Amino acid sequence: MQEVAILGVGQIPVREHWDLSLRQLAVDAGRAALADADVAKVDGIFVSNMTSGRLNKQRHLGAMVADYLGQRGVEAVKLEAACGSAGSAMRQGILAVASGEMEAVLVIGAEKLTDTGFTETTSALATAADADYEIIQGVTFVGLNALIMRRYMHEYGYQREDFAPFALNAHANGAKNPNAMFRDPISQKIYDNGRIVADPISLFDASPIGDGAAALLLVPASKAPNAVRVVGSAVSTDTLAIHDREDPLWLKAAELSAKQAYEQAGIGPEAIDIFELHDAFSIMAALSLESCGFAERGEGVKMGQRGDILANGRLPISTMGGLKGRGHPVGATGLYQLAEAVLQIRGDAGEAQIDGVNIAMTQNIGGSGATIATHILKRP
Amino acid sequence: MQEVAILGVGQIPVREHWDLSLRQLAVDAGRAALADADVAKVDGIFVSNMTSGRLNKQRHLGAMVADYLGQRGVEAVKLEAACGSAGSAMRQGILAVASGEMEAVLVIGAEKLTDTGFTETTSALATAADADYEIIQGVTFVGLNALIMRRYMHEYGYQREDFAPFALNAHANGAKNPNAMFRDPISQKIYDNGRIVADPISLFDASPIGDGAAALLLVPASKAPNAVRVVGSAVSTDTLAIHDREDPLWLKAAELSAKQAYEQAGIGPEAIDIFELHDAFSIMAALSLESCGFAERGEGVKMGQRGDILANGRLPISTMGGLKGRGHPVGATGLYQLAEAVLQIRGDAGEAQIDGVNIAMTQNIGGSGATIATHILKRP
Repeated sequence: MQEVAILGVGQIPVREHWDLSLRQLAVDAGRAALADADVAKVDGIFVSNMTSGRLNKQRHLGAMVADYLGQRGVEAVKLEAACGSAGSAMRQGILAVASGEMEAVLVIGAEKLTDTGFTETTSALATAADADYEIIQGVTFVGLNALIMRRYMHEYGYQREDFAPFALNAHANGAKNPNAMFRDPISQKIYDNGRIVADPISLFDASPIGDGAAALLLVPASKAPNAVRVVGSAVSTDTLAIHDREDPLWLKAAELSAKQAYEQAGIGPEAIDIFELHDAFSIMAALSLESCGFAERGEGVKMGQRGDILANGRLPISTMGGLKGRGHPVGATGLYQLAEAVLQIRGDAGEAQIDGVNIAMTQNIGGSGATIATHILKRP
Repeated sequence: MQEVAILGVGQIPVREHWDLSLRQLAVDAGRAALADADVAKVDGIFVSNMTSGRLNKQRHLGAMVADYLGQRGVEAVKLEAACGSAGSAMRQGILAVASGEMEAVLVIGAEKLTDTGFTETTSALATAADADYEIIQGVTFVGLNALIMRRYMHEYGYQREDFAPFALNAHANGAKNPNAMFRDPISQKIYDNGRIVADPISLFDASPIGDGAAALLLVPASKAPNAVRVVGSAVSTDTLAIHDREDPLWLKAAELSAKQAYEQAGIGPEAIDIFELHDAFSIMAALSLESCGFAERGEGVKMGQRGDILANGRLPISTMGGLKGRGHPVGATGLYQLAEAVLQIRGDAGEAQIDGVNIAMTQNIGGSGATIATHILKRP
């Protein structure tokens, strides 16, 4: 297996892009990554997306993106693992390069969620959970996460307000990222007055949907000595339905995939400088921190309270806004995380730059933890 | 890159499975492949499907299948390239084993199309074509293929009846396959009286949708000296919309992917003993034969007229019914083709057995040729 490097990144701002089609979003991000890498022709394209079949009436995104990117003929395919699609696509792109089969691979995540109205989008996103045993009960996806958060508060003795630092940090960091959907920091008072979406999850403990696309260009590390390295890449799964888990407060797939990624990189969690985690909901941020070994069980929330997660803290998270500040265009999110980690390592994160980032970890979650992709990137 | 072998195959009959969920279809096929290979635990699962997000309200099939197959925790993902999803999933499964990253991989294709009624299913299948430039005109997927067939007849001077041998052969072979949806041969008279679906395509020049699932278990060839070898594997793309092609009667992605597969195998088309092609429509069978080098341009239909494609002909095609006789559960079809090719090489094809099959080619088409996966399998 050859080592893989990330030679280019591209992203477009997460917005309600009324004037851009899904096709255009994907192509713009892909072109940006090609330009960043100064590469004209690729050997393969791996596209990630979750909802286009329903919301954009378009399946067959691999061929579509190849066609409109001026790469007709090239191998291309779409990958899907719900909100974890992009991390899973990254994993396949890495395998294609690491195997020696391809020399230049584009991984593109694109999602357009805002054209079809609330009911259609909510229904499409619910397909990330178990349709036959969870969603059929009438619960929404945010409802499932609210049940997990309520259980966490009950087990470990927290209040809703204890989760505030995750929201405040995300929005503070998003304000420094021009590609973020929300550019205004929020105060404790704004958090406290947040409208409840699904008790106990308020507006600020949930990420916003948005339209967006992000892309990476992968090459063998031997061909790009100065490019950011992929030193860990793993995908693990868990039960699709939360009620089937031995412990609904433990992300087994996060633990497994992080463990594999740490082993591949030859490091432990203490070596990670920043962690772009999947804070679709504040509760997921807490669970990720615990399951990946950054906090003891039930103490993920305390990392927020202690300020560990801040830009100048022990383990900065969501450094460019995370899912809550940057926005969560579901099938593209994992690639935004990776693109942001690359920028941080390269020193190209602008106002959001964290000092001295040598090793960054990203974690993209599908459903409520049923698919989790963990990647570790390193300065060359 | 390690050589890859197919140690196990599993398939369930293509039917209207009112009593089986998508989940159960996938699990049954996966279990059958595991049992055939005598393998209990895998390192990765690659699931192919096209329409589950809309028709079954379920995305996130990788984790779902891993969970219900007793493989919780394992890496899993879903791949989609419209009707070519399964061939594309096979390609990724092969890469995972060939790279040395995984030692036992399940590739499972599953599709459940018959629960939601004609309009929903037709609309879901139309997402294989270009939503914004083809489907928005009101044309259906069969309508697009009818336009291609009409053009072919015009260019090369054929009548609708000239395509009959493709249908007669498929149904004759399907009658010998217990997993086929249609078990009755059809006569020339039945073909002639076929109801027109989209002029000039009649009921017998179009494949039926159906519910089904098929699976393969892949391992390094070094671990399975007696198992069927994968000696060629390639995926190519073409324009998503047919009107963008230089020549709408030439499957460029078939030509490209077949050429790559031939080169990998070190053979030419004359070495192929049987060809499981993507006869979703008779016109596609003719175009595949031409684009892959089995017939001159405009002469694919003549291979039918000469009897070359019959079970005892020069190049038997659709040997277990093809898409028309076995049925076309879209995201599973490419794996049925591969499973059938394995059975033919192993001598396990029962009544449908073709004598002396050493090298088999399969070709799975997404859309009207926008994604094409070609595989070549060989007796060990």
